[in-house]
Amino acid sequence: MAVVVQKFGGSSVASPERIKIVAERVAKRAAQGDSVVVVVSAMGKSTDELVRLAHEITHRPHVREMDMLLSAGERISMALLSMALNARGVEAVSFTGSQAGIVTDTSHTKARIVDVHSHRVEEALDAGKVVIVAGFQGVSTDSDVTTLGRGGSDTTAVALAAALNADVCEILTDVAGVYNADPRVVPNARKLNEVTYEEMLEMAASGAGVLVLRSVEFARTHGVVIHCRSSFTDEPGTLVKEEVDEMEKALVTAIAHDDSEAMIRIDGVPDQPGIAARIFGDIARERINVDMIVQNISHEGKTDLTFTMPKEDLARSGQAIRRIIADIGAAGFSADSDIAKLSLIGAGMKSDPGVAADMFSALAEAGINIEMISTSSIRISCVVRALDLEQASQVIHDRFGLGTEEAVMEGV
Amino acid sequence: MAVVVQKFGGSSVASPERIKIVAERVAKRAAQGDSVVVVVSAMGKSTDELVRLAHEITHRPHVREMDMLLSAGERISMALLSMALNARGVEAVSFTGSQAGIVTDTSHTKARIVDVHSHRVEEALDAGKVVIVAGFQGVSTDSDVTTLGRGGSDTTAVALAAALNADVCEILTDVAGVYNADPRVVPNARKLNEVTYEEMLEMAASGAGVLVLRSVEFARTHGVVIHCRSSFTDEPGTLVKEEVDEMEKALVTAIAHDDSEAMIRIDGVPDQPGIAARIFGDIARERINVDMIVQNISHEGKTDLTFTMPKEDLARSGQAIRRIIADIGAAGFSADSDIAKLSLIGAGMKSDPGVAADMFSALAEAGINIEMISTSSIRISCVVRALDLEQASQVIHDRFGLGTEEAVMEGV
Repeated sequence: MAVVVQKFGGSSVASPERIKIVAERVAKRAAQGDSVVVVVSAMGKSTDELVRLAHEITHRPHVREMDMLLSAGERISMALLSMALNARGVEAVSFTGSQAGIVTDTSHTKARIVDVHSHRVEEALDAGKVVIVAGFQGVSTDSDVTTLGRGGSDTTAVALAAALNADVCEILTDVAGVYNADPRVVPNARKLNEVTYEEMLEMAASGAGVLVLRSVEFARTHGVVIHCRSSFTDEPGTLVKEEVDEMEKALVTAIAHDDSEAMIRIDGVPDQPGIAARIFGDIARERINVDMIVQNISHEGKTDLTFTMPKEDLARSGQAIRRIIADIGAAGFSADSDIAKLSLIGAGMKSDPGVAADMFSALAEAGINIEMISTSSIRISCVVRALDLEQASQVIHDRFGLGTEEAVMEGV
Repeated sequence: MAVVVQKFGGSSVASPERIKIVAERVAKRAAQGDSVVVVVSAMGKSTDELVRLAHEITHRPHVREMDMLLSAGERISMALLSMALNARGVEAVSFTGSQAGIVTDTSHTKARIVDVHSHRVEEALDAGKVVIVAGFQGVSTDSDVTTLGRGGSDTTAVALAAALNADVCEILTDVAGVYNADPRVVPNARKLNEVTYEEMLEMAASGAGVLVLRSVEFARTHGVVIHCRSSFTDEPGTLVKEEVDEMEKALVTAIAHDDSEAMIRIDGVPDQPGIAARIFGDIARERINVDMIVQNISHEGKTDLTFTMPKEDLARSGQAIRRIIADIGAAGFSADSDIAKLSLIGAGMKSDPGVAADMFSALAEAGINIEMISTSSIRISCVVRALDLEQASQVIHDRFGLGTEEAVMEGV
């Protein structure tokens, strides 16, 4: 008898009608003899609604109370789903994060899971019940209610799957799985059958939005197999695991893009030892989240430093950057929001140094200028003009034969 | 330093604006140096909204899950109130029923408090914090979330006041206190300064709606002084306690009315020993809640039995009553919904047997027919035509001089 954790997001439980559809799906799985644990998010946009209420009270809500407030959302969805299952004659019981033993640190609104005491969940499974667990929430080591931040429900699901030694952790969403490119940008993008944790981590970090980074990290650390699939159909989706089948192994697996960042260039930086450490130390203290960094060859004792950071932090960062360049005696700086980052990801790259050159030449042939480059052992990222993103994605997708099954085979 | 429990109902916390007004009031009380525990209900009609959601899932929601669902309501209001206090610079912390140590039996949707483990509340008070507690909810001896049923938040407040040995339990509502008659029926009704538990219990049981019966019972058992007062003003309201001041002692304290009941008459009942026990035993098994009972003098071996019961239960009771009268060989039955019950309440009645006669003669002089009578040592209730209720209330109110301070003094 398999133990399965299924996680349904907010849009899957947005209304009583949708909750009944989820109940039908869960009931079918339970009828197959599997032990089923369901992790649910809050209904639709109800968390946003609670945040709005808090901001009507005060602009800076107390974080402990914010967590108390937000945790109400999953209580509602999980109780309704449990009612729907019981009404179908499927014995079910709902547990809050606390009741399910999701123990976190005390960092309110972005707590990390430190332990899972799953005995209540296990007892209920042993009694033949479907267990519904509130995603996104836990109880801190100080016995206070905490929430896990963005993508928290996925993390709850993976952590429970690890604690229960589940056969699989299914993440059910409104997309059919993980694609080798964003179908909105590359129309012939293809769904992947399997992808390694390592690739999935690079994809998540490069802007592919299906799974959040920390839930994949958690899954890799604990060896939990994730199955990303559609909540509407029974079609298999994408398995995320340690190793993929030989047949599935490709030189490059996917491309990802991210247009949420801006590029900052600091000009006329005195080229002294330790200057980069000083600048980026200061920037980190201002809590500006830097992604890519490029330093030019020095010219007459001066150099340029270019880095990328989230566009949404630009407004609050201007003064800090001005202070830093005054401190180090740089000439000035400029910001450019009209960029996009395109990343090519694949575990096969490790053994093939030619991939980067192929990528650059494909972009050059299309007349697309590369403004920054950064690489890891299984990823190459290029910054291009935002207006070039769509064409660049399609060109790279075609060059590496990601469009169809046949093309992939040829590409290998 | 006094310990004060303040309970605010749903309408007092119906919007962020109202929550800020409550926060201002609580902050003022805390600034006076009192230790303040605030018990809150869910915002406005939000509990009704959750019930509606449940009924969109199923007509008979699982009771454990219903409690899980409904308990979300107070989480929202208590977290928002705590945020509002913290935003004003008043340290506050919110606790769920479970965190506040409200332990109940396992009767979901109508649980009874069996114990209060208030150490977390006490620690927070000792640390100088205002404590906000979710009303209406607790945790069962099986570690499940429970709710306390109608008026549950009042009961939470009284139970906490008892556990904390509080100086007073304030119930803040949109009325100024307990009146000696319903001001909507008797325009010159007067607010009472003090009333005994015993009188308040009879009033609650007779239809006066300010406090629910069980919270008054709980207060009497544990000697908690209740202060019913307005949530809008600082005017004192009504104290509910064991003994009232000599000066306040009146022959009759208040009149109450109840137009929620219907009258059932069973005709031609064989007058045998044990027949009433059999009829009302059967009725109780059908879970029909009988209030008053009158049995006529027997005539030729047959008698009539009349009783009152909630109008809202009439529809589901017809078949049961028909079965019962067939079983006992009665002639038939009739139901009459156009009645109202008028009750006269006062601890002073115990020592004055003339009150009942005075009440009956006042009604007779006004040409109002009495259809049923029942009494306790401090209460006389009469059933009259619903259309006569308003006039009957005014006549009785005037006869016993309840209208003005002066009149009361004369009445004594």
